[in-house]
Parts: sequence; structure tokens; C-alpha cells
Amino acid sequence: MKLADLGEFGFIERIQRAVAKLEGSGVRLGIGDDCAVLELPAGQVLLTSTDLLIEEIHFRSDWSDWRALGGKCVAVNVSDVAAMGGSPRHLYLGLAIPATMTMDDLDAFLAGFLETAADYGAVLVGGDTCRSPGPLMISVTVEGAVPADQVVTRSGARPGDAIYVSGTLGDSALALQRLQSNRPMAEELADCHHRPKARVALGRALAEAQIPSAMIDVSDGVLADLGHILDASAVGARLEQALWPLSSEFRQALAEESALFELALSGGEDYELLFTVPSDKEHLLADLFADVPVTRIGTVTEAEQGLLLVDEAGEMRSARAKGFNHFQG
Amino acid sequence: MKLADLGEFGFIERIQRAVAKLEGSGVRLGIGDDCAVLELPAGQVLLTSTDLLIEEIHFRSDWSDWRALGGKCVAVNVSDVAAMGGSPRHLYLGLAIPATMTMDDLDAFLAGFLETAADYGAVLVGGDTCRSPGPLMISVTVEGAVPADQVVTRSGARPGDAIYVSGTLGDSALALQRLQSNRPMAEELADCHHRPKARVALGRALAEAQIPSAMIDVSDGVLADLGHILDASAVGARLEQALWPLSSEFRQALAEESALFELALSGGEDYELLFTVPSDKEHLLADLFADVPVTRIGTVTEAEQGLLLVDEAGEMRSARAKGFNHFQG
Repeated sequence: MKLADLGEFGFIERIQRAVAKLEGSGVRLGIGDDCAVLELPAGQVLLTSTDLLIEEIHFRSDWSDWRALGGKCVAVNVSDVAAMGGSPRHLYLGLAIPATMTMDDLDAFLAGFLETAADYGAVLVGGDTCRSPGPLMISVTVEGAVPADQVVTRSGARPGDAIYVSGTLGDSALALQRLQSNRPMAEELADCHHRPKARVALGRALAEAQIPSAMIDVSDGVLADLGHILDASAVGARLEQALWPLSSEFRQALAEESALFELALSGGEDYELLFTVPSDKEHLLADLFADVPVTRIGTVTEAEQGLLLVDEAGEMRSARAKGFNHFQG
Repeated sequence: MKLADLGEFGFIERIQRAVAKLEGSGVRLGIGDDCAVLELPAGQVLLTSTDLLIEEIHFRSDWSDWRALGGKCVAVNVSDVAAMGGSPRHLYLGLAIPATMTMDDLDAFLAGFLETAADYGAVLVGGDTCRSPGPLMISVTVEGAVPADQVVTRSGARPGDAIYVSGTLGDSALALQRLQSNRPMAEELADCHHRPKARVALGRALAEAQIPSAMIDVSDGVLADLGHILDASAVGARLEQALWPLSSEFRQALAEESALFELALSGGEDYELLFTVPSDKEHLLADLFADVPVTRIGTVTEAEQGLLLVDEAGEMRSARAKGFNHFQG
């Protein structure tokens, strides 16, 4: 089966059939009209975010398992809703498809997209599709919801707050480096890059307990993303390298090449949650989640102090963000 | 000023500064966090639609005034909300930008995008931006709202309903044909292609008065888009060519080449509203809108009759949809 034989509307119907019905999702009308028609739970506000994923920029098709890529598109986008404390509800998928992509590739991509959406409780309710004269271009938009008094933004961090991060840092960047240099690696490490998890349950639990004063997801590296919190909150921070949460794979690589630590500071695509916690709320963290570890990595300071990093020898240095910038370098 | 010098975050801040504040728009948080945070009016449902616009597929940069293109991206997308009877509220813009695009081009594009958004009462509240290794790729997502009992879908048409369309048909396709064959044309005609209008006020007025039984916007040509209503409503239709609303520019071209009528049947990008009206509600149309003409072009029939077109000589023929299909031809 070729996409050209199936045609645009045949392809859309194929997607429509593959989308699972989700009871209680508030979807009055999904794929198949000019717009999706949706209800939000009473007392909740809408959270919306959109992401582009472009072949050769965000992914390489020769490194990608199409099913994993479909899932990653969802996780990356849903992670933004998690970072505001919300629950993802609806997804929209735009696909500009090069002629080289086969129907099997597309089916695998869609299977990954839809199964991951279901994992996070979200439904695909709309999109757009066309031919691409260049690379595969994917746009994903997510709508979520959160009780109006539980929204967590980037701007609420205050001096004295503790800085926490979920999971471990640098694994995705390490896996990418291995891919780029064509070196073998454990499947577990490769999965950190190809199959990232969005911390939706953790984000909801934190927001519901009203623990974080500010939160963001780590997509551009901790230093860059913490930088966004510091800018929005007009504060500074001191980070302790000795506290950094690292996986056993990462520690092993680090033992061979100490410069790799940079990846745990500035590598992208961890999709962990980075959040600040007022000291009188830190004790609430202990009971919250047995399944995802969270680690204190530093303290919010006055803005004048900037962003300081204390290394394992106790030396302090200024650590300006060096996250990925799409138009430079 | 080059985009590479401005950088990704500089570019986003530039957009953020250019976005006008809109009182009463329900925007709790716009550009600058992981998600936009939004309120919907009580009793209204959310309407969301997403569109891709790809260079060389949907537009050619050598034919495009960047400001007009920015406006067209909004109008095309907002038109989907109009077709459900809603009011557009929030917009999201994804831009994958080739290195050849200058900052002046981008500023003009954004100016057109933002001024057109404001015309329709919508605010740009989020997006994503990155480099493109291929063509310029634009994704636009719109969120609108409509009172829950005023949603107009494609599926409510019933035999005996009258079929109406707003404005005139075929102008955009005629202008595109002139562009493709490098022939001169009146600015008014060119504007139909480059600066289409979304019929937001008309769509709202129709929905509020609960006149249409079904509605769609004409993006792929009347035959194709009416076909979607017929499929969704399980009905047929008989169209009268003699009733077709044509502009004076189109009539003039038609006088020279009668085959051009095909453009008024199957040409795309009119962005007019095509809707069906139960006979007991037709009288309500007269009072509704002095500013946009609506014209009756046919009647809904039983499904078995299919889609029939009666030409000016009274000859009847089957008129299967031949709208644009992105993966064929």
C-alpha cells in the first residue's frame, strides 16, 4: 500500500479508525470536521503547547525506529503540560510527508504516537497532512487542563527555595553522543534518547499538593532551563555538582571521560521536571512518589548572585546557560 | 539584523513584544512558559484546528508578499472555527525557517500574522521555532469557542434543505492560474488568492441564529467540500450552475474561456462558508447580513441521488468531487 494510492482522505480515515475512543475525555467531536469540539472539566483552565520536530534537526530517520519516534513526539509535547502541573487531554498532529516515506513507516509512527497518547490519557482529535518537498516535518499540539488554583509557572521561585529535579540527568545527551560517534551502548541508555518519558503523574502530584513555587521541563539542559526559571522569577541559584543525579550508565561513562559531565549540565532532552520548593514544603516531597526519585540539586538565591555551580572539589564558578539554540552554532 | 545573531530566544522575545495585549481574552499566560494558560467563557465549548503551510506546496515565496502570507496563515486557520460557528481566541505558530529567509521577511510575515489575528479577535499565545534544512514550514493552530448549543457540524444536512454559499466562488483558483501562467490580473483578483478573508462574523451570526443544519468552509473547492457534508450527513445534493455566485472578474474570464467554470466548482482556497438551511429557516437569512452576500446554489436530496449538477442548458450530470488531494496528482 502506498500513500499515493490511499490518498489524503483515505489516510485521514485510516488514522480516524485507529484512534481509540476514550470515555469521559470531553471529546464531543474528534477527527473529521473543521475543528475538534471539546469540553473542559469545570473549574479547570486550558493548557496548550505546540512543538515542531523536523527531520535532520530533531531526529534522523536512519537512527529512528518509527514507532519510537511517534511515541517521542507525544512525550516531548505532553511534557510541557506536565511542567505546568496539568493533565494532557487532546493532541493534534501535523505531518508533511516526503515521498520516500513508506506506508509501513507511517503506520509504525502512528502506532507509536497513539499508544503513547493513550499511556498519558490523551486522544488524537485533529491534525493536517500534506506532502513535503523536503524533510519529514511533524507538528504536535497538546491541550491539557489543570484546576485553576494549581497552575505552576516559571515565575514563582523565591530565594531560599530548594531546587529539585526528577530522575537522572544527561542520559539522553550521552546516548545522542554515542549515536553520533557510532559507538555501541546499552539499550537502556539508547531508550533514554529514543523513548523519553514525560513526568505527567509526578507533575500532577506536585501541583495537586501545591508543592512547587516554579517548574519547567528539562528539554534544553538543566542550566538553560533553570535559566528560564531564574529569568522569569528574577532570582539566582547555587547548584551543587556533588548532588547531581546520574544513572549508573552515565557514571560509568564519566569514569572514563570526566568532561562528559557537561552533558548532565547542558545536554538536552532529559524531559525530567525541574522545580523549586519553599523550605516549609520540602517535607511533603518524601511521601509523594515512590516511583520517580527526585533529588535536591541546589538552592534559589538572590538575583545578583547569578547562576553559580559548586564542583565536587568545592570550587565555585559562574554557570551561564549553554542550552541548544536553533539559530546559532 | 540576522536571525542567527538574534538567536532563538531573542527571536521569541521579539515576537512576545510584538503581541498586543487583549483585554477580556481569557489569556492568563501567553508566550513565555511551557504552555499558554487560558480560560474559556462559561457554557462554551472549545474548537481547535491545526493547519500546515509548506513552501512549494501551499505557497511560493517568489509569489508571496510576506506580510500577506502571514495574514493568509491566520485566515485559513481561523476559517475552520468560523465553519463551526465559533469565535477564534488563541493562535499558536510553528516556524521551521530556512537559512535563506531574512529578518525583514520574518518581521513582515509576523506583522501580517499579528494584524490579521487582531482583526479576528485572536491572540498569538504560543508556538515553536527552529531552523529548516528544507523549505519554510509553517504550522498554525487556532483555538476558538462557541456556546455549547450553537456548534454547527458537517453532519446535520437533511433532504429538502437549501444549499447556500457566501461571497463568490473560483476567484482564488483563477488568480492562482494567472500566477502560474504568469499573466497579469487586477489587484482585486490577486487579493482573493493572497489575502483571503475568513467569514468569522457570518459564521457566528448564522450559528447564533441557529440557521444552518450543516456548515463547512470552502478550502478544497465546493464540490469536494460539499462532498464532505454529504458523506457526514448521509445525503445527496442537486446543484444549479445558473445560480453560481461569480465575481465580475471571473465572469469576464469565463466569457473568454468557458472551461474556466471548473475553477468555480473545484478550485480551492475560496474560504467562503458553504451551509445547508432547513426550508422553514430560509426567511431568517434575509435580515442577517448586509455585508456578505449569500447565494442559494442548490438543494439537499436523498443519498441515492448522489451529487448532481444541472448546467445552464438544463442538462444534468453527476459531479463527483475533484478537490485537491495532497498525495495524488
